[in-house]
Amino acid sequence: MGTDSGVFHDRLARVRERMSDLAVDALLLSVGADLPWLCGYEAMPLERLTMLVVPAKEEPTLIVPRLEAPRVDDRPELFRLVAWGETDNPVALVGGLIGSRITLAIGDHTWSRFLLALQNELPARRWHPASMVTSALRAAKDNAELDCLARAAAAADRVAGAIHHGDIALVGRSEAEVASDIGRRLIAEGHDKVAFVIVASGPNSASPHHEPGDRVIGRDEMVVCDFGGILDGYCSDITRTVVTGEPTPEMQDMYAVVSEAHAAGLSAALIGSRCADVDGAARDVIADAGYGEFFPHRTGHGIGRDVHEDPYLVDGNHTLLEAGNAFSVEPGIYLPGRFGARLEDIVVATEDGPWSLNQADHSLVVVG
Amino acid sequence: MGTDSGVFHDRLARVRERMSDLAVDALLLSVGADLPWLCGYEAMPLERLTMLVVPAKEEPTLIVPRLEAPRVDDRPELFRLVAWGETDNPVALVGGLIGSRITLAIGDHTWSRFLLALQNELPARRWHPASMVTSALRAAKDNAELDCLARAAAAADRVAGAIHHGDIALVGRSEAEVASDIGRRLIAEGHDKVAFVIVASGPNSASPHHEPGDRVIGRDEMVVCDFGGILDGYCSDITRTVVTGEPTPEMQDMYAVVSEAHAAGLSAALIGSRCADVDGAARDVIADAGYGEFFPHRTGHGIGRDVHEDPYLVDGNHTLLEAGNAFSVEPGIYLPGRFGARLEDIVVATEDGPWSLNQADHSLVVVG
Repeated sequence: MGTDSGVFHDRLARVRERMSDLAVDALLLSVGADLPWLCGYEAMPLERLTMLVVPAKEEPTLIVPRLEAPRVDDRPELFRLVAWGETDNPVALVGGLIGSRITLAIGDHTWSRFLLALQNELPARRWHPASMVTSALRAAKDNAELDCLARAAAAADRVAGAIHHGDIALVGRSEAEVASDIGRRLIAEGHDKVAFVIVASGPNSASPHHEPGDRVIGRDEMVVCDFGGILDGYCSDITRTVVTGEPTPEMQDMYAVVSEAHAAGLSAALIGSRCADVDGAARDVIADAGYGEFFPHRTGHGIGRDVHEDPYLVDGNHTLLEAGNAFSVEPGIYLPGRFGARLEDIVVATEDGPWSLNQADHSLVVVG
Repeated sequence: MGTDSGVFHDRLARVRERMSDLAVDALLLSVGADLPWLCGYEAMPLERLTMLVVPAKEEPTLIVPRLEAPRVDDRPELFRLVAWGETDNPVALVGGLIGSRITLAIGDHTWSRFLLALQNELPARRWHPASMVTSALRAAKDNAELDCLARAAAAADRVAGAIHHGDIALVGRSEAEVASDIGRRLIAEGHDKVAFVIVASGPNSASPHHEPGDRVIGRDEMVVCDFGGILDGYCSDITRTVVTGEPTPEMQDMYAVVSEAHAAGLSAALIGSRCADVDGAARDVIADAGYGEFFPHRTGHGIGRDVHEDPYLVDGNHTLLEAGNAFSVEPGIYLPGRFGARLEDIVVATEDGPWSLNQADHSLVVVG
């Protein structure tokens, strides 16, 4: 994925176009997903600065620590490589490349210590987050990116299937043990890395971002399993809620509402829909069923090289969905101290309507 | 480790003392190691802002996304907890807590997008990196921290022992496969996470930060294995170089120089030594043997909650070593296109002299 220079050239051209529209004089990228998206290289998150400097109209330069230079695929047609030694000052090197340019956009995840050092080196500049330039471009996935997301989703589906089929035992084991198993399965099914695993059982299932711990999973409990990994640079993210015994009528009713809200969110995920309206479509179902106060989070987030990225399906976000946008649809209901449920798939807005990358069973499966 | 409120109270008192010395009006901590060091909570590296605001003389406040509030161990004696909802503006919340304070120190790893948003919210302030306040305090480890580092080092030693004893096969396997095995062993020996694994064989051993790849390890090759993990929040980091067959006289001579440089660096790591002089002690041995140009990196880095932190053993760093400083001593020689070697232990400066946390065999072990 993404090893074709043509892809990077095309992205660079679109970045430059957007820089021109926004009157950005230079783009500065360091750690985070913008850099590999634009040139195929990922900066190590360390104290030695790596930074790609893209002037609006001149050749980009990648500044890297000399130690890491051998890790860089040399792409002279894309950028000039400058390696700095252990006693050099990389901030001064970047400053020299910026020169008298005024309006600068810096990678959103760049460490603040580097931004502060650059602001000292380059006073009286206008600084913006790089997402202003890159975010909408990254959000419109091309076919190769959608293929990566689909393969990651299929791998996550197989892990969800293993939970549904009882291949990952729940009852009598701690949340942390189950989370470890899920992590191993994510790798076994083709992910390069585990991004996160939530296993939240019984009353813990009412905490949307629960950290799996020592709690031993019992019978007749709701268990929220939310997990994802990275495959060829792109993320998966899926949630399935299961029950370790026959669900009570209240559990069934609540889960039916979550499921209906999910379907409503999915149906609303059309090109041209406002992000806030997709959120509203799911939220209305939950509110109408009387659970409104128990759905405390947004309906979804964009996904790609970052597990959370634009577009966010949240109240107040008037951005319109575009073709190739990929995002989670993940409504949930959480009854504090009792139990909760969430259902999450990754969905793509396409000319043919919403395309769900995940296909694992949506029902409240009973497992052992 | 670090669950005792007394430890955090003591750290907060020292942080406030240093803020007073430096005339810092408020400290702002987000992602990164300063936050768990100071209050036991680690921020999730996500787009929802978590930030601890520590005014010089008032009660600290931890701003967290409402979703993540259940993950926080409530410590009302240490900080006030404020949870923000999905449509709130956390940057405005932080701004309100800062009020008219002028001189602000922000966590070094805080995402630039949040610093830029705060600079917009709070114009005409003076911004500094938080390391100005925290770095020297974090570098002087207390006994509980040294115990964590020692346990992590012992776990890494056992993995090095497994390589030395041939329990992790090298010849005929790819660097990436061997790296996976080493990662699994790091976990099996007690680490909570793998931080990094370098396996660099044959000519790749001449690249200090080589990314393990498809290259199959052959006979009679130098193999540099550099790896570490995180155990109870603290890092291990060790390098051993092995050879898959009888080493040539040139390999033996070169490795003897690396080993002698390591011993010289270790001996120089005394309380009161300048960091640059520890670097110089190791570097002089290599230069005197005629390999000076083939040792392109610093001699070491501090280690603790971050795998790289202050103090750095590098030319130009005139900081004096203090009791409890923990750092790597890791000279190496790299002959481009041919082979390289590095030897790394974690060392603590103590009143009784340098204390090496790693004890795995230092010799150039022949393995299969």
